Amino acid sequence: MDEQLIATTYPVVELDFTEVRLSRDWTYPGRCLLISQEEYRDLQDMSADDYLLMMMEVRQVTQVLANLYSADKMNVASFGNVVAWLHWHIIPRHEGDTAWPGTPWENTEPPVEADEDTLVQHAERIEWAILDADLADEDDEDFEDEDELDGDLA
Amino acid sequence: MDEQLIATTYPVVELDFTEVRLSRDWTYPGRCLLISQEEYRDLQDMSADDYLLMMMEVRQVTQVLANLYSADKMNVASFGNVVAWLHWHIIPRHEGDTAWPGTPWENTEPPVEADEDTLVQHAERIEWAILDADLADEDDEDFEDEDELDGDLA
Repeated sequence: MDEQLIATTYPVVELDFTEVRLSRDWTYPGRCLLISQEEYRDLQDMSADDYLLMMMEVRQVTQVLANLYSADKMNVASFGNVVAWLHWHIIPRHEGDTAWPGTPWENTEPPVEADEDTLVQHAERIEWAILDADLADEDDEDFEDEDELDGDLA
Repeated sequence: MDEQLIATTYPVVELDFTEVRLSRDWTYPGRCLLISQEEYRDLQDMSADDYLLMMMEVRQVTQVLANLYSADKMNVASFGNVVAWLHWHIIPRHEGDTAWPGTPWENTEPPVEADEDTLVQHAERIEWAILDADLADEDDEDFEDEDELDGDLA
């Protein structure tokens, strides 16, 4: 896996298709990278089946982070212009955060470095929430956590 | 559908789940928006089935634009901090383009307005390529256009 992606993040959990890693830049707490475990350049370079597996993991982590960080909006993006190893940025956003309503890429403030304790605690919390969501999905494939979503949308 | 998304784009084609629209900003020729025809705020707010339908359309359009515009890299992103009606930016990128290797959101140059003829011609070309890809998928579900991909990756 690419060294630059590894150096700027802290490991959370390996899923079937991607590895989830927590950003060391704490400007947007809970910002994660989902990195394809196999090397691909662009999403159209993988088979449709692998792509759908990856996108289900993107959805699961987006849902988990939205709930854990009470996000006002989730930002999901794949660029790879600098590091062309397929990866997704999944970023919980809050009204009034540093770049709001712009994207994190428009933010010119220096990054805020998280301390190791914070990274350890949050990575563990995210890992458990993802594994919980996995179990819930297995129990009930139609599980949508509708009460929480209604709450967030109210 | 949101007025701001409509005003900055030109219609290409309606797919089952999303509408494809071409950006009037010609900084990145062929930049498209895929806009959910139903109103959702975040991708985790729709059912898993609808989400996968949408993501297959994202993949199809990404593949078509990569080929048509001979992109060096495809950028795919959903923010919605300003317009919270779920939509995806799909952007063919070229080494050395205005923002390269940054994201289009880091580019501070003023937009380049496409003339109507250009929009009409490119929208038609993109529409046909998407419909062609649809037919190819129906003929052969494992169709991956591997020769072209190998060429792009060489």
